[in-house]
Amino acid sequence: METMSWNVYDATCPSRQVLDLIADKWATLIVALLEDRPWRFAALQRHIGGISQKMLTQTLRDLERDGLMQRTVYAQVPPRVEYALTPLGKTLGEPLAALIRWSEEHMEAVTAAQQHYDQRTQGGDGSQ
Amino acid sequence: METMSWNVYDATCPSRQVLDLIADKWATLIVALLEDRPWRFAALQRHIGGISQKMLTQTLRDLERDGLMQRTVYAQVPPRVEYALTPLGKTLGEPLAALIRWSEEHMEAVTAAQQHYDQRTQGGDGSQ
Repeated sequence: METMSWNVYDATCPSRQVLDLIADKWATLIVALLEDRPWRFAALQRHIGGISQKMLTQTLRDLERDGLMQRTVYAQVPPRVEYALTPLGKTLGEPLAALIRWSEEHMEAVTAAQQHYDQRTQGGDGSQ
Repeated sequence: METMSWNVYDATCPSRQVLDLIADKWATLIVALLEDRPWRFAALQRHIGGISQKMLTQTLRDLERDGLMQRTVYAQVPPRVEYALTPLGKTLGEPLAALIRWSEEHMEAVTAAQQHYDQRTQGGDGSQ
């Protein structure tokens, strides 16, 4: 069997669209939560600060369409809907959780760099 | 020393802005290239299909401001400018390269899921 060669650096390669979906703040936050257990819509919306209902709906639909998340409707009154990772989605849980850990662990180094950059560029010392 | 507690799920936590920078398609593509060696602007632009000059400039500036990338100007005629990861940026190389590998390796599974989803939702079989 021939090895397929996908290349995200080629804008027309379909793997670029996959990267576009997963290299996304909202997708990262959602997938990392679903890695632990299934969640309901309202609970996701409460837990993810700043996400709009529209953005959550759209991101969940994208994740479902790409086979990373599945939506299960339980026939009860009122109907209960749960969102869970598929086996494919679970393979992405760890790489995305690593990004979240990186953001939290390196927060202080990044903030220090930003302050240094802003002082330097506002100082106008003549360096390009 | 007290342990700091950052939380990307809090929209007002500065770690959310860090995640916003790194959970990004263009930042991912650039950092993964710089992981191997320094690059020049024109070579980056040629290699990264679909990136505009404006987007490349903006993303490089963001990466520099956050302390992930450094820009070195060599005093020659014409001046040579190289972009390289800082030690902080190098710690992000592997997590972002993992996203690119995931995109390329799971491309076929994602495409199959998309086709299945589109057939199902266009089929109008009456499920919610």
